Amino acid sequence: MKIALCQLNYTIGDFAANSKKIIDNIEKAKHSHCDLVVFSELAICGYPPLDFLENKDFIHTALRAIESIANHCQGITAIVGGVEINPNKKGKKLYNTAFVLADGKIQQSVYKTLLPTYDIFDEYRYFEPNTFFDTVRIAGVDVALTICEDLWDKQPVENSFSQSKLYTVSPLAEIKSKFDIIINIAASPFSLQQENARKSVLIDNAKQYHVPVVYVNQVSANTELIFDGQSMVINPKGEMVLEMSEFSEDFSIFDTNQSIKSDLPVHQLDQAGKLYQAILLGLSDYFRKMGFTKAVIGLSGGIDSAVVAALAVDALGADNVVGILMPSKFSSDHSISDAEQLAANLGIKTHLLPIADSVEAVENTLEPVFRGTAFGIAEENIQARIRGVFLMAYANKFGHILLNTSNKSEAAVGYSTLYGDMNGGLSILGDVYKTQVYLLAEYINRNGERIPINSITKAPSAELRPGQKDADSLPDYDTLDAILKLYIEKKYSRDEIIAAGYEAETVQKTVLMVNRNEYKRFQSPPILRLSPKAFGLGRRMPLVAQYDF
Amino acid sequence: MKIALCQLNYTIGDFAANSKKIIDNIEKAKHSHCDLVVFSELAICGYPPLDFLENKDFIHTALRAIESIANHCQGITAIVGGVEINPNKKGKKLYNTAFVLADGKIQQSVYKTLLPTYDIFDEYRYFEPNTFFDTVRIAGVDVALTICEDLWDKQPVENSFSQSKLYTVSPLAEIKSKFDIIINIAASPFSLQQENARKSVLIDNAKQYHVPVVYVNQVSANTELIFDGQSMVINPKGEMVLEMSEFSEDFSIFDTNQSIKSDLPVHQLDQAGKLYQAILLGLSDYFRKMGFTKAVIGLSGGIDSAVVAALAVDALGADNVVGILMPSKFSSDHSISDAEQLAANLGIKTHLLPIADSVEAVENTLEPVFRGTAFGIAEENIQARIRGVFLMAYANKFGHILLNTSNKSEAAVGYSTLYGDMNGGLSILGDVYKTQVYLLAEYINRNGERIPINSITKAPSAELRPGQKDADSLPDYDTLDAILKLYIEKKYSRDEIIAAGYEAETVQKTVLMVNRNEYKRFQSPPILRLSPKAFGLGRRMPLVAQYDF
Repeated sequence: MKIALCQLNYTIGDFAANSKKIIDNIEKAKHSHCDLVVFSELAICGYPPLDFLENKDFIHTALRAIESIANHCQGITAIVGGVEINPNKKGKKLYNTAFVLADGKIQQSVYKTLLPTYDIFDEYRYFEPNTFFDTVRIAGVDVALTICEDLWDKQPVENSFSQSKLYTVSPLAEIKSKFDIIINIAASPFSLQQENARKSVLIDNAKQYHVPVVYVNQVSANTELIFDGQSMVINPKGEMVLEMSEFSEDFSIFDTNQSIKSDLPVHQLDQAGKLYQAILLGLSDYFRKMGFTKAVIGLSGGIDSAVVAALAVDALGADNVVGILMPSKFSSDHSISDAEQLAANLGIKTHLLPIADSVEAVENTLEPVFRGTAFGIAEENIQARIRGVFLMAYANKFGHILLNTSNKSEAAVGYSTLYGDMNGGLSILGDVYKTQVYLLAEYINRNGERIPINSITKAPSAELRPGQKDADSLPDYDTLDAILKLYIEKKYSRDEIIAAGYEAETVQKTVLMVNRNEYKRFQSPPILRLSPKAFGLGRRMPLVAQYDF
Repeated sequence: MKIALCQLNYTIGDFAANSKKIIDNIEKAKHSHCDLVVFSELAICGYPPLDFLENKDFIHTALRAIESIANHCQGITAIVGGVEINPNKKGKKLYNTAFVLADGKIQQSVYKTLLPTYDIFDEYRYFEPNTFFDTVRIAGVDVALTICEDLWDKQPVENSFSQSKLYTVSPLAEIKSKFDIIINIAASPFSLQQENARKSVLIDNAKQYHVPVVYVNQVSANTELIFDGQSMVINPKGEMVLEMSEFSEDFSIFDTNQSIKSDLPVHQLDQAGKLYQAILLGLSDYFRKMGFTKAVIGLSGGIDSAVVAALAVDALGADNVVGILMPSKFSSDHSISDAEQLAANLGIKTHLLPIADSVEAVENTLEPVFRGTAFGIAEENIQARIRGVFLMAYANKFGHILLNTSNKSEAAVGYSTLYGDMNGGLSILGDVYKTQVYLLAEYINRNGERIPINSITKAPSAELRPGQKDADSLPDYDTLDAILKLYIEKKYSRDEIIAAGYEAETVQKTVLMVNRNEYKRFQSPPILRLSPKAFGLGRRMPLVAQYDF
C-alpha cells in the first residue's frame, strides 16, 4: 500500500482554505498513485478549536466540508481529522473523529478514545470518548486507526504520586482482530522535550504490535501553541524509516512494501535552533493568519528586546519591523548605542521617543498627592508604563502589533510592570528563561554579529533607577532559572528544591515571588509555548488563595 | 437523625483556617446533639483549587488536615469534602471525595462520579470518576452520599445539537440497595439562573427516590467565582423544608423526624438585589482573603464607575475607598460635578488629577512621528492610558487595589482601551450588561440618592473626543445587550439572532465586534462571574482564527 503523509498548516475555523489544502493534497497523492492519503487530527478545522466546538454553525460547516472533500476521493482513500455529532442520547455531544473517505463519501468514522485533559489540553470539555474498537480495511490492509493520544495509553500521571498511568484504557489492546499497520493522526504541540517522548511512544507501539506506525502531525502555530510537524514512519523493528520536516509543511509517500527509506533527512537543530525555528513559526503564523504584517518593538539596548527584534525581522522582514528607543534619565549611554547598533545590524527603522517629559508631566500632576513620599516602585512603574503608552500609541496609529519582550524568568518572578513592559499582542520569550535567551542570541549571531555583543555581555538592568542591576533584586540567572525550572516544570516542592542543592533563603524568596505574581501573569499577553509547562492556559493557578504549603 | 448543615466560607489553600472552621462547627453540632454534621465539597481546601491539585504538598496537607478533623469526630459523624489519592495503577491520580469521619478516624470515602468539565469547570483535569456505588450507613440510616454534579445526571448538553444528556451514568440509579436519604455536598457557583435550576434538580431527585435531599453548598468568593450558599433540605414530596441564607455563612439543623420546618426564611431579592449581594461577596472576599483593605477607582461621572464606587464602599467601608477624578479637555462640566456629588454622597476621599499636561507631553514627544496624521483611536487611547498610569501610580504608591469599571457590554464589543480603562485587579461589572448596571444603580439608590441621578439619566459617553456619545458607535444598549445575550449566553448564530427579530446589519456589526475583540479580553482582569457565561475561564475562544461562520 502506498500512503501519502500530508503535514499541513491549518488555520482554525478557515474551512475554505483548509478544505482547499486538503483537496490539493488528495490530488497530489492521486497523481503519485497512492492508495491512501492521510491528514492530521481535526485537520478540517485546525487544532485547537476550543469553544468554537460549542458553536452549531462551526460543527455543521465542518461536517459539510468533510462531505465536500469526500467527493474528491475517487480511486483513493483519505483519512481526514474532523468532528462528528454523537448520535447517542447520552454523553458529550461530539466525537473527535478520523473520517475514512472513499468512493465519494464517508465510509467510516473512527473516534478518539483517550482525551487529553491536562496542561493545555481540554478535550473532555468537548468530546465523548470512543468505546468501540475495531480495525478499518483500506486497500486490502487491516488498519488500526488511532488519533494522537490514543497511542499514549502508557504515559504516567504527570508528577505522579505513585507509579500510576494516566489512562485506564489501551485502545490498541482493545482491538480483538489482527491489524497490519497502525496509523495515528495527531495534533501534537512542540516543546523542547516533546520530540523524544513522541518518538519513544511510536517506537514502543511499533515494536509491541510488530507493525509499522504511520504518524501524521500538523505543522502550525495557533496563538500560543506551536506544532512542529515531524511526521514519521516507524517500522516493526522500531526504526524510523521516514521523517518529515520540522516547522514546515511537507508531503511524503510511504510504501508499506519498502521498510527502509534511504534518503532520511537528519534533523540536526540544537536546543537554540529548535527554539529559534519554533518561535519563527509562532511569530509568522500569528501575523499571517490574522492578516497583520507589521510589528513594533521597544528597544532597550538589552538582550531580550534585541532577540525579539531579530526574530521579528526573520519572521516578517526588516521592512516590517520598527524599533522604538525610549531613553529615560536613568538610561545609560549604551542603552541607545546598543539599540542603534542592533537596528543598523538588522536594517530596521527606529524612532527615538525620550520619556523624560511625559514622566515629568505625570509626576508633576501627581505631586500634590505623592508629596513627602520617597521614590519607589510607583515611580519606577510610571516610566515603564509611559513606555507602554508610546508603544501602543505607535501600534494604534500605524496598525502595527506590539511584540512583548519579557522572558520567562521575569514573568515567573514578576520582574516586570503590568500595563508597562508586559504590554503586547504576543509574548515571544515568555516561555524562554533568561539563560535560554543568551543561547538564542548566540544562535542568531551564528553567522556573524546581528545582536550587538555588548547587549549580550553587559549586566542585565531594568534601568528604572540609578545604577539598577537585575542582580540587585534577583538571584543570578543560572541559579534563578534552575530553581524556576524545578518549581514550575518539575513541580518540586520548596523542600525538594533545597534538597537538590539550592540555598534555602534563595529558594524561599524565589518561590514567594512566583506565587505572589500570579495576578500579573493573569493579564499577560498570550505566550508562545516552548516548554512542557508554559505560563498561560496550561497552568491554572488560583489568584485568591493561600500559597503557604 | 439530627443533621447539622454547615454553609461556610473557605479560603483556597488555607488549611489551618478551613480546618479550624470545620472543627468549630463540629463542636457546635455536638452541643446541639446532632448525629451528623455536613460540610461542602472540597471544604478542606476550598473550591476551585485548580492546579494546586497537581502539587504533592497541597494534597498531603489536605489529607493530614482531614485526619486531624477526624480526631474531633467522637460521638458524631462528619461528612467533609476533600481529596484522596487514587490507589489504582491507572487513571487520574485523585478522587474528589466525601470523607465520612467518626470515632476519631476516616470511616469511609465516597468519590464523585460526574465530573463537570465545561464552562468554568475542569474537574476531569484532576479527578478520576467513581465507579463503585453503594450507600453509607450513618446512625442507623442508609445514606446515598453524593457530590454536587452527581445529582445532575439528567442535565441536557448545553446548547444541544439534539435532545441528549451530558452524562452516560446516573450515580443514584447505580446504587442497588435502598436508601433513606440523599445527602449532596456541593460547590455550586452563583449565576442569576442557577438558583432555580439547582432547586429543580434537588426536587426532582427527592420525588424520584421518595427520600429527603440534604444539600450543603459552600458560600464564598474565590477570584471570579461566587458561591451563594442557599443550602437546603427538600422533603420526599419535593417541598423545601429548610432554606439557608444567601451569600453568608449559616448553620442549620435538620431533624429527619420533622419534615416541615416552620420558620422558613423567605428569599426575596430581585435580580438587582442578587447581583448586588453577589458582587458584594465577590469584592469583600477578594480583599479579605488577599489581606487587602483599600481600593482606588477612577471616577468619570458616569454610571459604571459610580456603581463600582458604591459597591466598594458597601464592601470595604467609605474610609477604604478613594476616587480619582481625571478630566481631560474633552470632559464635560458634569463629569466632575457628578463625580464630586457621588463622592459626597458616599463619603469617600477624592483626588483631582487632570490629564491634559501628561497627554500633551506624550503627544509632543510623538509629534515628529505622528505629524500629518489625523486625531483618531491612537489619540483617544493615549487619554485612557494616561488615566491608567495615574490610577496604577496611586495604587502602587499607597497599596490600593485598582477596581476595574468596564461593564459586560463594553467588554463584549471592545469599547474600552487595553492598558487604559481595562486596567484593574478585579473587574466588578465585567459580567453585568449596561442595562443591568442601570438596575444596580436603582437598587443602590433604593433608600435615597447615592448615585447621582444625573449619572443615571445622562447619555453614556467615553468623552475621548468632542461631543462623543456611546450611541455614535454602538447600537442602543437595550438592543445591544439583547443581541449580546443571545450570541454569548444562548449561543445563537447570527442568522438565529436575525430571525429573532433584530436588524441584520446591527447583528452583523455586533457579532463582528465581539469576535474581533477576543484579544483584548484575553488580557482582562479576572471578572466576577454572575451569568451562566461570563468572559474569562468559562469561555475559551481561539485568538488566531477565522470567525467567518
